[in-house]
Amino acid sequence: MKGRIQAEVLTIGDELLRGEIVDSNKSFLSDRLLSLDVETRFHASVRDEPDDMVDAFRRAAGRSDVVLVSGGLGPTRDDLTIEVLAKTFGLELVLDEESLAGIEAFFARFGRTMAANNAKQAWFPEGAEVLPNPIGTAPGCLLEAEGTLFFCMPGVPRELHRMMDEQVLPRVATRTEGGAVVRATLLRTFGMGESNLDDALRDVAKDGEVTLGFRTAFPDNYLRPVTRAASAEEAEARLARACETIRERLGVLIYGEGDETLEAVVGRLLRESGTTLAVAESCTGGLLGERITAVPGSSDYFLGGVVAYANAAKTALLGVPEERLAREGAVSEPVARAMAEGVRARFGADLGVATTGISGPGGGSEEKPVGLVWVAVAGPAGTDARDFEFPFDRPRHRQLTAQVALDWVRRVQLGEEPLAPRYLQRRPGPQGKAE
Amino acid sequence: MKGRIQAEVLTIGDELLRGEIVDSNKSFLSDRLLSLDVETRFHASVRDEPDDMVDAFRRAAGRSDVVLVSGGLGPTRDDLTIEVLAKTFGLELVLDEESLAGIEAFFARFGRTMAANNAKQAWFPEGAEVLPNPIGTAPGCLLEAEGTLFFCMPGVPRELHRMMDEQVLPRVATRTEGGAVVRATLLRTFGMGESNLDDALRDVAKDGEVTLGFRTAFPDNYLRPVTRAASAEEAEARLARACETIRERLGVLIYGEGDETLEAVVGRLLRESGTTLAVAESCTGGLLGERITAVPGSSDYFLGGVVAYANAAKTALLGVPEERLAREGAVSEPVARAMAEGVRARFGADLGVATTGISGPGGGSEEKPVGLVWVAVAGPAGTDARDFEFPFDRPRHRQLTAQVALDWVRRVQLGEEPLAPRYLQRRPGPQGKAE
Repeated sequence: MKGRIQAEVLTIGDELLRGEIVDSNKSFLSDRLLSLDVETRFHASVRDEPDDMVDAFRRAAGRSDVVLVSGGLGPTRDDLTIEVLAKTFGLELVLDEESLAGIEAFFARFGRTMAANNAKQAWFPEGAEVLPNPIGTAPGCLLEAEGTLFFCMPGVPRELHRMMDEQVLPRVATRTEGGAVVRATLLRTFGMGESNLDDALRDVAKDGEVTLGFRTAFPDNYLRPVTRAASAEEAEARLARACETIRERLGVLIYGEGDETLEAVVGRLLRESGTTLAVAESCTGGLLGERITAVPGSSDYFLGGVVAYANAAKTALLGVPEERLAREGAVSEPVARAMAEGVRARFGADLGVATTGISGPGGGSEEKPVGLVWVAVAGPAGTDARDFEFPFDRPRHRQLTAQVALDWVRRVQLGEEPLAPRYLQRRPGPQGKAE
Repeated sequence: MKGRIQAEVLTIGDELLRGEIVDSNKSFLSDRLLSLDVETRFHASVRDEPDDMVDAFRRAAGRSDVVLVSGGLGPTRDDLTIEVLAKTFGLELVLDEESLAGIEAFFARFGRTMAANNAKQAWFPEGAEVLPNPIGTAPGCLLEAEGTLFFCMPGVPRELHRMMDEQVLPRVATRTEGGAVVRATLLRTFGMGESNLDDALRDVAKDGEVTLGFRTAFPDNYLRPVTRAASAEEAEARLARACETIRERLGVLIYGEGDETLEAVVGRLLRESGTTLAVAESCTGGLLGERITAVPGSSDYFLGGVVAYANAAKTALLGVPEERLAREGAVSEPVARAMAEGVRARFGADLGVATTGISGPGGGSEEKPVGLVWVAVAGPAGTDARDFEFPFDRPRHRQLTAQVALDWVRRVQLGEEPLAPRYLQRRPGPQGKAE
């Protein structure tokens, strides 16, 4: 099967065909396959109907080398994937004692007794290789039938993601050029458009040791370096080298790795340095506070904030001088500074952050267009303010403003300069076109 | 084709198979078909590859009565749906002059000249019926081939949704029992679980005049009554009767209809009555303000808020007596009341709303468990407070708390009692199981 692999993703479940849930497993699996340079040629979904499943398995065996199957591994009568897969290729089901013990242990860990129907999840087609599921009861399996590899995985995204990355990808990799052991990570960046990132890292992606995937998750861009080698040591060494090069190239534009959100990174840095934070929000309307407090334990460093939507509130609660508001307008450098300083003083925080801007769709003028935003940070060393001019819409102006503010706090903690506005104004990139 | 229709959804585009986007069109289309009692049996996706597309069209013709095709109607060389569909069934392409004029007019409206390749979008297979696209350049079409109906629609969700509802559903309806004209709406409810709604409306769903769909969009539940009749008047009359019955049954639990969010409804009511609002948030951390200000023009009625995360902030900014915090704890009825009254006074607002609770995962105790939340509303007639005990996780506790608070403001405006806590504690329903 060396050379070009034909891959297919098959998801199973009545809830998909009734349109009750949006099937994000397909895009996840195809994205991961692409990290090995394997293209997905077909996506298909069928109900929990044996006849339709048999047809789908037969068709997949006839046209694809690798078939990623998701769903139908649960303990209920509707969960038929394994049984029907065996039947399709005339195979018996055999009990895997190790899986049975594993499922029993899973229940024991939560102080429960395994229900009888869960035992079903320990039966697999003869000749299949069992794929462990450390965070759920349903193990997966790999069955080779008529020259096609069927990987069966759970439909629960969390379990699917882990099994795909830890069990499936390395096995698919052995069938492709470039080594059997796969290592990958996710680097999260904010402040540079996708095409500029692509330019900056063109040689990294082409050095043969690493495949570099890009993904936009507005307002961030994620990089996904993937390496393959004959051994784990070599794959890890290659990945470390690739990450080092990328980090050298992008520096502080990378804010985190893996699952860590920007607000979690900011929280970690504030906690480590014993710094407290308060926020004064106008255009973000509470979004900044909401994101900071989405992190469990954020009360250790976040004192609170003022949503100063009305001008009177900016004066009464933050001490912004009335005549400054009248003279300069609410969206102005002096008001942003006064808001940051005011909230810092009122809460007795080490850092005060302020946002004020025109989110739109209304409220813009020639001089102060929709998308104009001022962000200010007040700290022990003084106050700084920057203006940005975003080209999007109300929700994205607010998201971007909150991201800029959080990122600035991160940069302050790292002793770095805040993001230069031009980074966000140049070439909006694909997110500019999206809905 | 009377009786049970076999439906299939086929989406086309390289971006789907590369996993670059999550394909929500499939679930949308299947959900809509189900509103006519038509079940989708297959979902399939292929790349912009003529050979794969031909196979997919042939297979669909062989197994399905109705095929909803989405994507590949654009002006570029990759957009091949119409061309390949014609080829698959040996048909010529013919120019539809009306569509051409429509596309030219579309560009003219934005002061632009039509590019040459856009003319391609005015060609359709001979015998196809053109389906107008009032909000985009690509018209759709209906082709009957080998006894199967192929509906081709754009991949852009906004355009797809409109074409599906206005053009495709009525045509599918003519092929099913129950009349050709379809009318539907979406009723948004908050405060009753799906199974209780189902119980309460069982007879409505079974009266033969209306199909009633349920959808959970945490923390709300949506109802989708669909009616069909021979004429528009009759279908609309049936829908109006069904909605009236549902509204009589559920009363204030229905907060809105169609696309209107709860924060938009609240905003409309506040604006209409000239009432101003300020919020004091502890456990919601800014989420309440964020949602209120997501509505354009919210500065007309929203004065602002205080995110009083630290106890010191509750005292300094909201005037909550220190000794009350010490004696009763931050999550308590007296503190919730004092926060609501404090923020009302500080901002000079007509209504003050407060949230304080233990979102988790940490911070709970036997007496005050994770999920305990107090919400208070202070107004000209006095202050009221309610406690809730939610059984979910941090993000959902925060979402629910914000929803309860917004819903309470709505109820105050309507002269109704606030939601009784028991509604939210009984039977978490499917959302309790979801990830």
